[in-house]
Amino acid sequence: MKKHTHGGNVYQYRNCIDFSANCNPLGTPERVKQAVIESLERVSNYPQVGCRPLREAIAEYEGVNPENIICGNGAAELIFSICHGLRPKRALVPAPTFAEYEQALGGIGCVTEHFYLKEEKDFRITEEFLQALHEELDVVFLCNPNNPTGMLIEKELLLQILERCRALNIMLIVDECFLDFVKKPEQYTLKNVLTEYPNLFLLKAFTKRYAMAGIRLGYGICKNRSFLEQMEFVTQPWNVSALAQAAGLAALKERDYVEAGRQMVFVERDYLISEMEKLGLKVYHSQANYIFFRGPEDLFEKCVEQGVLIRDCSNYPGLEKGFYRIAVKKHEENNSLIRGLKKIQDKDMAVQKPEKKMQDNQR
Amino acid sequence: MKKHTHGGNVYQYRNCIDFSANCNPLGTPERVKQAVIESLERVSNYPQVGCRPLREAIAEYEGVNPENIICGNGAAELIFSICHGLRPKRALVPAPTFAEYEQALGGIGCVTEHFYLKEEKDFRITEEFLQALHEELDVVFLCNPNNPTGMLIEKELLLQILERCRALNIMLIVDECFLDFVKKPEQYTLKNVLTEYPNLFLLKAFTKRYAMAGIRLGYGICKNRSFLEQMEFVTQPWNVSALAQAAGLAALKERDYVEAGRQMVFVERDYLISEMEKLGLKVYHSQANYIFFRGPEDLFEKCVEQGVLIRDCSNYPGLEKGFYRIAVKKHEENNSLIRGLKKIQDKDMAVQKPEKKMQDNQR
Repeated sequence: MKKHTHGGNVYQYRNCIDFSANCNPLGTPERVKQAVIESLERVSNYPQVGCRPLREAIAEYEGVNPENIICGNGAAELIFSICHGLRPKRALVPAPTFAEYEQALGGIGCVTEHFYLKEEKDFRITEEFLQALHEELDVVFLCNPNNPTGMLIEKELLLQILERCRALNIMLIVDECFLDFVKKPEQYTLKNVLTEYPNLFLLKAFTKRYAMAGIRLGYGICKNRSFLEQMEFVTQPWNVSALAQAAGLAALKERDYVEAGRQMVFVERDYLISEMEKLGLKVYHSQANYIFFRGPEDLFEKCVEQGVLIRDCSNYPGLEKGFYRIAVKKHEENNSLIRGLKKIQDKDMAVQKPEKKMQDNQR
Repeated sequence: MKKHTHGGNVYQYRNCIDFSANCNPLGTPERVKQAVIESLERVSNYPQVGCRPLREAIAEYEGVNPENIICGNGAAELIFSICHGLRPKRALVPAPTFAEYEQALGGIGCVTEHFYLKEEKDFRITEEFLQALHEELDVVFLCNPNNPTGMLIEKELLLQILERCRALNIMLIVDECFLDFVKKPEQYTLKNVLTEYPNLFLLKAFTKRYAMAGIRLGYGICKNRSFLEQMEFVTQPWNVSALAQAAGLAALKERDYVEAGRQMVFVERDYLISEMEKLGLKVYHSQANYIFFRGPEDLFEKCVEQGVLIRDCSNYPGLEKGFYRIAVKKHEENNSLIRGLKKIQDKDMAVQKPEKKMQDNQR
């Protein structure tokens, strides 16, 4: 099994605007940076094992008990802890979806079955997913809204999947990392049914909500204490740095910032979709802070030439060459992307025109 | 299996000087803090996957190839990655030693055999260790100098162990995290034999050398690329934060600081051992930046009353009530510890004296 190559490689494409990773377009809040700076005073100390103050603050934010929160070195670490803790033999994941579920499952030798999302159904999770559940499965990963497509799973269907998973003794991991950027997250989150479903684990991140991917902080919510203890058991005690714990405590106070980022995403997402459709691209109507679309097969390279780094999605299982994802960013940055795409199209047209003329002449 | 409780709990004992965690007594270098602050400018980006620039800098520092370096979210993460990647069935660890080896092994269901170090031999690893090696073992963990005892393993014996491990197809993990604070580390490190032994993995940390435990950064050196790839395979791609990568690059330039910290440790270690022996404590002659000793069973609580947090070592396998460890710190801090220990002794004497007098009268 190969390691998946991700977006966000700003280290290789230094002169590009990065549309390949999806964070709050407003950037890291100053208060978060300040908290990190202040925490440096005591950084010779080990971080607090168990992150108690941070878990209490997250619990208050989410309206759950601190005992039901687990913190991680980014949500990605928690995906690996879930796999190392649960040690499933057989898993089901949609395709395409976030690659680290399958990477983590592969690392423990788990067999992964794919539920291939269909292009003709806009890559949506449909009721057919219920038929793909069977008693040999130990775990199912779902991303809501899905990455890279931005498609939401309807709450009713999600509850049916959850119910069926409980009946079949399957752990259901729902990654809600991008749900903050959906218009009505409360209509889609499974937070309110956690108590009835000990087979449910919700994954959340600070990374996207507060644009702090470099700090590494994510968390999970689960009513099943023994599941959380199993995860803790396969993880070092000091997994969340003192800097990340301080950053998280500060970030949770940034309610206005989060709302402002959301509102910007709603406006700019509509703007980008409309402009991209004008350019004749096949755009999927994402409900997240990123947009999935289909374009020419060499678009990635051509965008880099225009100083724009987009996410080539051709390495996702279930996708082929020509699928891309872009982040929704600030208006000026989004304009740079649209200008770049237009220039690429104009150049292509200039090349195609003589041929077109020749064809016209032949008529 | 229970989770081990560690030292360094400065969050519970806020008013104490912390002698329970062992870092460079000079504290975090300013240059390291400054590098973290500067890295905040780009902290909305994901950290660089694979830490290439940091691995190159470490490789130069260690005189090895970047391909033979693996970075982790603290050395502790690497211990877990080793276990998740190798999936040993049977392991051998000394007792007492750093608790996370056995914790990580327990997390994957590995059977751990103990080589009990003997008090009458000052808890040293002896040639008997060679007899404890057998072909059913998959991995051996050794800490050199050992934590919590501060005892070094002689190079000749270490090479015999390594040779025997290779013959028996056993992976040998040697934790050299505290070797920086030994007078002549070059006489004890196994770095120069890495090429001949693909079954050797050396563990190193920034935590202790640069007093940056809260940032989380450690690394491993191994000539066996497939072993390293197996570790990478069971770990998230963004495990080392952007802040830690920046901190590490800055820290490696701090050569004078490291040497100054070492010299301070040598002087202060001798001072502490001599003062503690004057107080009648049984002190083991540690060669690391911490001191292991035996004292009254209630010494931990009494030290806390004196504003001093020491490490109660009674929860280590192979130890019982009355064993302790203290860090070697700055002279003024060390004086506070000695003053505290003296006060405790004076109080105890005051309580004992009347009894003693009574005994004298009875004669």
